[in-house]
Amino acid sequence: MNKYFSNINHIPFEGSDSTNPLAFKYYDENKIIAGKKMKDHLRFAMSYWHTMTGQGQDPFGSPTMERPYNDLDGMDLSKARVEAAFELMSKLSIGYFCFHDLDISPEGKSLQEKYDNLDIIVDLILEKMNETGIKCLWGTTNAFSHPRFVHGASTSPNANVFAFAAAQVKKAMEITKKLGGENYVFWGGREGYETLLNTDMGLELDNLARFLTMARDYAKKIGFTGQLLIEPKPMEPTKHQYDFDASTVLSFLRKYNLQDDFKLNIEANHATLAGHTFHHEIYTSRINNALGSIDANQGDLLLGWDTDQFPTNIYDSTLCMYEVLKKGGIAPGGLNFDSKVRRGSFQSDDLFISYIVGMDTFAKGLLVANNLLVDRVLEDFISNRYSSYNNGIGKEIIDGVTDFEKLADYALEHDQIKNVSGRQELLEDIVNRYIYKS
Amino acid sequence: MNKYFSNINHIPFEGSDSTNPLAFKYYDENKIIAGKKMKDHLRFAMSYWHTMTGQGQDPFGSPTMERPYNDLDGMDLSKARVEAAFELMSKLSIGYFCFHDLDISPEGKSLQEKYDNLDIIVDLILEKMNETGIKCLWGTTNAFSHPRFVHGASTSPNANVFAFAAAQVKKAMEITKKLGGENYVFWGGREGYETLLNTDMGLELDNLARFLTMARDYAKKIGFTGQLLIEPKPMEPTKHQYDFDASTVLSFLRKYNLQDDFKLNIEANHATLAGHTFHHEIYTSRINNALGSIDANQGDLLLGWDTDQFPTNIYDSTLCMYEVLKKGGIAPGGLNFDSKVRRGSFQSDDLFISYIVGMDTFAKGLLVANNLLVDRVLEDFISNRYSSYNNGIGKEIIDGVTDFEKLADYALEHDQIKNVSGRQELLEDIVNRYIYKS
Amino acid sequence: MNKYFSNINHIPFEGSDSTNPLAFKYYDENKIIAGKKMKDHLRFAMSYWHTMTGQGQDPFGSPTMERPYNDLDGMDLSKARVEAAFELMSKLSIGYFCFHDLDISPEGKSLQEKYDNLDIIVDLILEKMNETGIKCLWGTTNAFSHPRFVHGASTSPNANVFAFAAAQVKKAMEITKKLGGENYVFWGGREGYETLLNTDMGLELDNLARFLTMARDYAKKIGFTGQLLIEPKPMEPTKHQYDFDASTVLSFLRKYNLQDDFKLNIEANHATLAGHTFHHEIYTSRINNALGSIDANQGDLLLGWDTDQFPTNIYDSTLCMYEVLKKGGIAPGGLNFDSKVRRGSFQSDDLFISYIVGMDTFAKGLLVANNLLVDRVLEDFISNRYSSYNNGIGKEIIDGVTDFEKLADYALEHDQIKNVSGRQELLEDIVNRYIYKS
Amino acid sequence: MNKYFSNINHIPFEGSDSTNPLAFKYYDENKIIAGKKMKDHLRFAMSYWHTMTGQGQDPFGSPTMERPYNDLDGMDLSKARVEAAFELMSKLSIGYFCFHDLDISPEGKSLQEKYDNLDIIVDLILEKMNETGIKCLWGTTNAFSHPRFVHGASTSPNANVFAFAAAQVKKAMEITKKLGGENYVFWGGREGYETLLNTDMGLELDNLARFLTMARDYAKKIGFTGQLLIEPKPMEPTKHQYDFDASTVLSFLRKYNLQDDFKLNIEANHATLAGHTFHHEIYTSRINNALGSIDANQGDLLLGWDTDQFPTNIYDSTLCMYEVLKKGGIAPGGLNFDSKVRRGSFQSDDLFISYIVGMDTFAKGLLVANNLLVDRVLEDFISNRYSSYNNGIGKEIIDGVTDFEKLADYALEHDQIKNVSGRQELLEDIVNRYIYKS
Repeated sequence: MNKYFSNINHIPFEGSDSTNPLAFKYYDENKIIAGKKMKDHLRFAMSYWHTMTGQGQDPFGSPTMERPYNDLDGMDLSKARVEAAFELMSKLSIGYFCFHDLDISPEGKSLQEKYDNLDIIVDLILEKMNETGIKCLWGTTNAFSHPRFVHGASTSPNANVFAFAAAQVKKAMEITKKLGGENYVFWGGREGYETLLNTDMGLELDNLARFLTMARDYAKKIGFTGQLLIEPKPMEPTKHQYDFDASTVLSFLRKYNLQDDFKLNIEANHATLAGHTFHHEIYTSRINNALGSIDANQGDLLLGWDTDQFPTNIYDSTLCMYEVLKKGGIAPGGLNFDSKVRRGSFQSDDLFISYIVGMDTFAKGLLVANNLLVDRVLEDFISNRYSSYNNGIGKEIIDGVTDFEKLADYALEHDQIKNVSGRQELLEDIVNRYIYKS
Repeated sequence: MNKYFSNINHIPFEGSDSTNPLAFKYYDENKIIAGKKMKDHLRFAMSYWHTMTGQGQDPFGSPTMERPYNDLDGMDLSKARVEAAFELMSKLSIGYFCFHDLDISPEGKSLQEKYDNLDIIVDLILEKMNETGIKCLWGTTNAFSHPRFVHGASTSPNANVFAFAAAQVKKAMEITKKLGGENYVFWGGREGYETLLNTDMGLELDNLARFLTMARDYAKKIGFTGQLLIEPKPMEPTKHQYDFDASTVLSFLRKYNLQDDFKLNIEANHATLAGHTFHHEIYTSRINNALGSIDANQGDLLLGWDTDQFPTNIYDSTLCMYEVLKKGGIAPGGLNFDSKVRRGSFQSDDLFISYIVGMDTFAKGLLVANNLLVDRVLEDFISNRYSSYNNGIGKEIIDGVTDFEKLADYALEHDQIKNVSGRQELLEDIVNRYIYKS
Repeated sequence: MNKYFSNINHIPFEGSDSTNPLAFKYYDENKIIAGKKMKDHLRFAMSYWHTMTGQGQDPFGSPTMERPYNDLDGMDLSKARVEAAFELMSKLSIGYFCFHDLDISPEGKSLQEKYDNLDIIVDLILEKMNETGIKCLWGTTNAFSHPRFVHGASTSPNANVFAFAAAQVKKAMEITKKLGGENYVFWGGREGYETLLNTDMGLELDNLARFLTMARDYAKKIGFTGQLLIEPKPMEPTKHQYDFDASTVLSFLRKYNLQDDFKLNIEANHATLAGHTFHHEIYTSRINNALGSIDANQGDLLLGWDTDQFPTNIYDSTLCMYEVLKKGGIAPGGLNFDSKVRRGSFQSDDLFISYIVGMDTFAKGLLVANNLLVDRVLEDFISNRYSSYNNGIGKEIIDGVTDFEKLADYALEHDQIKNVSGRQELLEDIVNRYIYKS
Repeated sequence: MNKYFSNINHIPFEGSDSTNPLAFKYYDENKIIAGKKMKDHLRFAMSYWHTMTGQGQDPFGSPTMERPYNDLDGMDLSKARVEAAFELMSKLSIGYFCFHDLDISPEGKSLQEKYDNLDIIVDLILEKMNETGIKCLWGTTNAFSHPRFVHGASTSPNANVFAFAAAQVKKAMEITKKLGGENYVFWGGREGYETLLNTDMGLELDNLARFLTMARDYAKKIGFTGQLLIEPKPMEPTKHQYDFDASTVLSFLRKYNLQDDFKLNIEANHATLAGHTFHHEIYTSRINNALGSIDANQGDLLLGWDTDQFPTNIYDSTLCMYEVLKKGGIAPGGLNFDSKVRRGSFQSDDLFISYIVGMDTFAKGLLVANNLLVDRVLEDFISNRYSSYNNGIGKEIIDGVTDFEKLADYALEHDQIKNVSGRQELLEDIVNRYIYKS
């Protein structure tokens, strides 16, 4: 386990005074916070695609990533990546990984060959899992890269493509089960449209529901008990994705009576592309009992595409962990770094540095969030703010024992209203101070 | 009926060769299109707020609008505006109007005085309606301008505000009924948040549902049989509005089991602020059986606020009318010009010119859309594109008689997939040519 | 000096452990940082408009601000605001203020009356300045709110408006001089266009240059020696402002040979509306020798309008102060809080709290920035990164002693290029750690 | 010349009633408009990269394009593409092409091999040019795709990269000259930054100026007399490009005294990404005497990346041609279709259809624009709107014979100002009607 990144040792925790780029400053995996180990709060996962398969290409440029297995290809490359992945996770004390089928083995010339390739690599991964104790957070299928999916997968106008996508999900679910995956994710890569002029949106959405219904049924049939998760994204690659944001997905699930079967995998950068904060999307999911897992990354709010940067913004990680703590923990989901090193951070040690930075950002965010909750600085402010609903007319509203006529009578007698300040600036400052002091 | 805009005559239809700014070039109200009069397809409405009450102020400037009643105030002003409104609608052959309570009469010092003011003006309006045959498309309440609503109305943290808002809606619904209004609209002016740091989003959304449930019940109780409509908007005035877009509202309605009681009022500029095309939001509403009415205006896609411009974009009006025709008509909803003259278009004749421009844009859009539908240029392309779902494996998918195992078996045998072009450029050109030729 | 905010005492510095909302935690005005007092680094200014004149209205709502002088009007109100302003600044230890003519006294029925009103209030302000030692950072005129400026001021199609604007700037410059103002600011409120269809953009820009040239000449004539500053903004109130961003203004100044006479006043929220970070705009100004002063506020990157929020983002204040320190100080400019309390923060103590929060955010930012610079963590990284320009072919490029032919010969021999990582993630983490530890 | 697209014949002009996808409806190349042939107004060019080299990959998907030369590679592929390109241009009556060095021949293992490859293909292209009469509108180099340019080309922190980029431009300029190219374009592919934390922006901009100065000198030395053009773009691939928009480039050119040597190549989609309309950027360039050429495409204003779609929006093409006509023609520039078929339009006939659609959109735009100008509907409105500058105080302003004191005296006597409406809605309607009727 020291073959590909031999110049990097196991990453130690050195504390907040360390300036060693290859050490944790905040992530102390066994430290107890709110009665639980940091690692159990955070449940960090490596994303196989960005970390192992990503090569740094962009719409205007070729691969840049310098990797020790760059000279390999085919199954040899896939095997090398498995070893490198487990070496990296071990050295970084990352407990989980997430993957697409296509990340781990080659497409093949036929569907059967694809299956066969997968089986070989899955066995190798299982071996490594047993060796290291690292687990699978979730699996998924890539039903968007191959040209067959140019017009969508389950929403393709071509029924053969629907069938092919079903075959892929079936296999991906089977191997996820085999690997003990705790979740299975659906990200609707090209489930959307480029132009409504050529699209039967009603049929496509019905087909998406048919597909997910069959997926749920197949999971039950094979005894896969992990969470099924849908990952919202508003656009990219298509002009308009069907799973635009958390509320859009919830609307869809409720329409097709799938709301008890699927939860959400919320990604920071997808939230902001949809015009929401990361916090908003997590909060929305939580209060709809639909927060399943988190894709930890960050975007650039001045850019209109998914940059999938490693998360370094302490505000975002704090508010994310605040919601996670309020929910009582993210398990069986986790924090998957759906993050890629910047194209200019092409050295192998950048991979390690970036994971450390991301993990420290969330570890620090956990500390800040926990302190905020323990001190109840926000919670008390809020419960006081809404206290008029605890009795009198407010309680009648909550209890459903009033109506417009009674309320109007009440209002006629109480029409000189006194509000109090919302104190936004003060609350923002409190968060700042907890960041500085935690 | 020639008192306030005496230099403007009744606006005639002069046909497409006219260059008279005060004539219709395309809107020929009694012309039959697809078996129905243009005016019955379009059901145009005047927005009382922008047209009568709006004064041209913006965040950086004072009122600019030159109006013949600018020297009046209080109830005198309100009465003058009623007369002016009906004069304007009559001259423009606009058959409907939409209003907020606060548009038509002054706030008053007490809730009772507000009610009393409303009663006086409503009687005057009724008189004018009888005189002219003009009808009420929808009424609503303004529960966002007064400082009592600074933190929301039904989502205020202050229960007295909830009660006050209920009293307002109760009254507004009563007067809408009295005026024969065919719809009642809920636009969640400040139903949203400025910061999640001070917000109990779960409670606020529950309260919003409680409020709408009581509103529905009250409508039933008083025998108001018009459509109840919710109008999505993503932001502004608040940082984040709860009724973000069509899907968000549908999700909310389904969660609280209100989906059979409320439909949607889709506004063009709100759609684009939410990251969707106008077409998308109308289409989404239609296929969810929720398209209730339309707010016809347009925004500026390079600006991030609601500019509520009079609609002049022929692409947007064409695709809007395309959906309306596919739905079989917009009634009992209509096309309400939630549009304001630009601050620099401050002369009274700009009001007339702008309505003419907006009405012509939609009349032309209707002609183009109808021709597209009659010729089935898009419809045939689409039905052919999805024809693989008409038989074989596709039909089994639609009929729900297959599953992942059967589909995987099928895919193993049909894994060399042939797609066909989506032809986006060609279809965009076809729309262009129908615009030029209709 | 304890008349309007009598429940608020002088705001003390209590240090970072304080939880008193009415105390500074980081802003210790006389603390020496890098050889200079904090107050001399920061040169904080109160914005008269947002603080004294702003009432909390927005496009959808009426004023909300509860102020002790709300029952006054006309000159009485103006006088009360002067007293309140100096009370507030004194209690907050704010050393400077910024103002528009229209903030401090009423418009009047005629230009002469406007002048007369100004003279009365300016004398009162002078008195208060002498009493308190508070100074004027900059003055300006409001040439955008009155309807006469509906189509612009110096870029109006109406020459009389150009003349009126000149009369306003002349007077505003005179009173700024009388008050010892260290700068005079030009913000092109409506210098822009709503639609190019009615606009002669060439003429309007020429007229803007003519106007600024005359302004510069008049400043020289009366011996006003303060900096003349242009404040970029991309949009709002107009669809497109001529002073879009720093580069656009620099282009304009260079075209009309005004680059030695005007510097820039950079505002955070205007930067982001133009698609740049605050840091980018300050940096761009600095390297063009054009950084004059700063409007300290923040926007919401998910909203498309100028929210002018009090600054609480520590990343932004750190990078701002980093550039200010690199420039060697912001004087004769300063940090003007062009910030308004949120509409829901309508109590008078919110004014104090918000200023404290803003001042602490920048004081902390100064500490972080100074530590970064003292330790040279970014500076050394950067100078090392570009070290290839210190000798050999790199030095020849810098020294201008090479050409394409020589370079091509060199490249033919050195065509196997080795780059090194840009280390973005590591550098972002370093900034985080300096924030946590400073 | 009928080898690769043998199922497509020469594209005829069939007039506006044609429904043949493979015929022009508006582009009648020899039709005389305003005294000049349509083809001489429009000077259409094929973009070699999108048309010949583009394969339909995107950040989430593999190539989709079905091309008759897909089974070739290396120099064989390059040669086949030359033949296919000229066949396509000939069949489409496109008179010009634009290219990057890397579009036409392979990178090679060394710089010398790259040169050699280019020489072979350039000779082949010359042959085809002579055979067909098709000309080169402009050439350029690709200094952004290869990993050596990961941190920029002339703005790289690595001096060897600067030298390599110089060698590329030198060669590209030589072959552009050899091909009789009428322009040479600089698009700053990665001339920008990913993060300011690792960037010396001052040095990078100085180096960019040094590079362009040497480029200009080399052009003079070899007698290349074509226009040198800079193409603005705000972002993508880098987080922030130095050539943000027209004004930013003009500012840069003026700073480094290059304004007489470089003009601008304006691209529609780049304009909108920078927050401007296409019209604004062309207009800005024109009035700064800097409009050099045009990249004709369109973006999606709801998406934040460069979609480079074939232009189908008639508003944009009309206003573009309006500016071109006002300038007196675009030569020696032209209209280059920097447009790619949508990923879903992957058939070879989509290439033809899309060019036809784009060419027809601009041909129709030319007709509309010319009619607007001939009738002077906008011109007369505008000249009347600014008529106050033709005499009296307005003329004194224009003539520079007044000052602030005289203007203030004038304003004191003329302070009751009367403005007139800007008529935006009316003018938008006029454009609509010219579109319908032209």
